[in-house]
Amino acid sequence: MTDKATFYHAECNICVTAEQGLAASLDPARFQTEIVNFADAPDRIAEAEAAGVQSVPAFVIGGEVFHVNFGASMADVKGS
Amino acid sequence: MTDKATFYHAECNICVTAEQGLAASLDPARFQTEIVNFADAPDRIAEAEAAGVQSVPAFVIGGEVFHVNFGASMADVKGS
Repeated sequence: MTDKATFYHAECNICVTAEQGLAASLDPARFQTEIVNFADAPDRIAEAEAAGVQSVPAFVIGGEVFHVNFGASMADVKGS
Repeated sequence: MTDKATFYHAECNICVTAEQGLAASLDPARFQTEIVNFADAPDRIAEAEAAGVQSVPAFVIGGEVFHVNFGASMADVKGS
């Protein structure tokens, strides 16, 4: 049985580093990791904000939000 | 073969959440995760700063620093 981990990002360099270094490092036996790129999926922005995402890159795992470094604020994401 | 992942923290609530949610979620087939609590190991502070850690909780994986949310600055850690 796997839990869902969602990694939200916006294609910034910091986001890519976090995706390669951390999002790709979760235990595949325990997590199904979905990568959401707001550039491709702007319709997912509202869902991320509802989950508590304030900046990207960020994970949502088991209802907890983990902001990883600081790439861009959600205001930046929505303005871009 | 496993890489080393080091998770630095200072016992704050944000640190504990990140430890349970993220540090415990790395793929054990790929990473040997060491948990470093500065309260127990103040001698590791210099090593963390040299790696680029600016706040806790934070991971160092493959030379990259990933700050996760914001629990305390390293100045706070050193002052405590």
